[in-house]
Amino acid sequence: MNEAAGATPPALVARLVLAYDGTAFHGWQVQPGLRTVQGELTAALARLVPLASPPPGAGRTDAGVHARGQVASVPLNEAESLGRVARALPHLLPDDMAVLEVTAAAPDFHARFSATGRHYVYRMLLRPDPLRRRDHWWVRQPVDVAPMREAAALLLGDHDCSSFCVTASIDPGRMLCRIRRAELLPGPAGDSIELHLEADRFVHSMVRTVAGTLVEIGRGRRTSASISAILLARDRRAAGMTAPPHGLCLERVEYAR
Amino acid sequence: MNEAAGATPPALVARLVLAYDGTAFHGWQVQPGLRTVQGELTAALARLVPLASPPPGAGRTDAGVHARGQVASVPLNEAESLGRVARALPHLLPDDMAVLEVTAAAPDFHARFSATGRHYVYRMLLRPDPLRRRDHWWVRQPVDVAPMREAAALLLGDHDCSSFCVTASIDPGRMLCRIRRAELLPGPAGDSIELHLEADRFVHSMVRTVAGTLVEIGRGRRTSASISAILLARDRRAAGMTAPPHGLCLERVEYAR
Repeated sequence: MNEAAGATPPALVARLVLAYDGTAFHGWQVQPGLRTVQGELTAALARLVPLASPPPGAGRTDAGVHARGQVASVPLNEAESLGRVARALPHLLPDDMAVLEVTAAAPDFHARFSATGRHYVYRMLLRPDPLRRRDHWWVRQPVDVAPMREAAALLLGDHDCSSFCVTASIDPGRMLCRIRRAELLPGPAGDSIELHLEADRFVHSMVRTVAGTLVEIGRGRRTSASISAILLARDRRAAGMTAPPHGLCLERVEYAR
Repeated sequence: MNEAAGATPPALVARLVLAYDGTAFHGWQVQPGLRTVQGELTAALARLVPLASPPPGAGRTDAGVHARGQVASVPLNEAESLGRVARALPHLLPDDMAVLEVTAAAPDFHARFSATGRHYVYRMLLRPDPLRRRDHWWVRQPVDVAPMREAAALLLGDHDCSSFCVTASIDPGRMLCRIRRAELLPGPAGDSIELHLEADRFVHSMVRTVAGTLVEIGRGRRTSASISAILLARDRRAAGMTAPPHGLCLERVEYAR
């Protein structure tokens, strides 16, 4: 690690787009003694460029959650380092990680704070498929998709999402999310469904809690209209179960420029 | 094992449709001391019904090859056993296997000898995706898909497929295949291609050798027209490389009745 890298403004920031199979990671964020995505990325990058701190990621995915469009930012002291990272990084990452893009961003670019939107997909299988068991939640009981689709549409707009958040916060402003897309679509092979959620920000475990609640609606335990009451309650106990992490994938992160 | 089960004709035959992630198996066929799909299936079934021998499968998939529609046949002495198998088998299989259907077939039904067609798909990724690394071959060099598509079409019809077979045979009749579908299609996410091959029968490693040859065509090392010369040569050395097993999946097996 280069202590000076944090003291002077970087020449530029490398913007990395990453994909990973979250199965064998204890989530994104560096944790001592545990294998994490940020930890593996930091170890690989440290072989190429001086690093002041582990590169921030746009979404701090939990243990078992996947990504196809995670974004990380790496401040670089020298513009020439960008080419070295682009050429060498793909060969230094483990099998369950890949870097899809390496591009130059402005010196003030920050993967997390500059992000204006995130797109998550939660994938559910309606029959077993061992080949998709790592990135789909197999919903064993039959579900009626129509009310689930209606319920998803009620999530559109600006909401206090406390009811879908597993961690409490004393700052209610942190619970406000502008949900721009909330859609349930059939998967490509016809035996799965995909919940697409796009918002400016997400609260902790939000997509998983929405997915679990929609499945309860699909099983007839709740009505689709109950979504509105859940949002108004601002209480995690009002929502349904938290779906398992392995169905969730961070697909894309958006930036204003 | 029940010695008597092989001596008298069975009351009926259970037809099982199986899916599996081939990654952790040494192929379909039982081999002493190795984990195989047929071995795991036999162990699970033996807890439910008397078995004279390991149940035959329609396609003897190699190590690392997957299935979403493998068919196995299990002769049963008692018609009532079918319900027991249907109810209990799903709970006795390991995570990387699933039984999708259990139905009754005639006493002379044999998964392999009664089959009239097989449908294999070979999946290739055009960019890395850690979430699909187990069932896609990541083709690292750029390929031109148009000549690959043309080449695939030349496989349609009745052919001696010796050039696509890794094991020699003294019986030339065993090399004849009626290829009913040979098509290269874009994958669902637009970053992959799928080779669909349907034929009455396949020779050993045929789909993998066709896939490897098509990739050489896509890279410009061979012309699409070379497929015809390869077929006429009846010599494995005329064809291209054998693509790795993990891109291959047995999707469906057809029966006349």
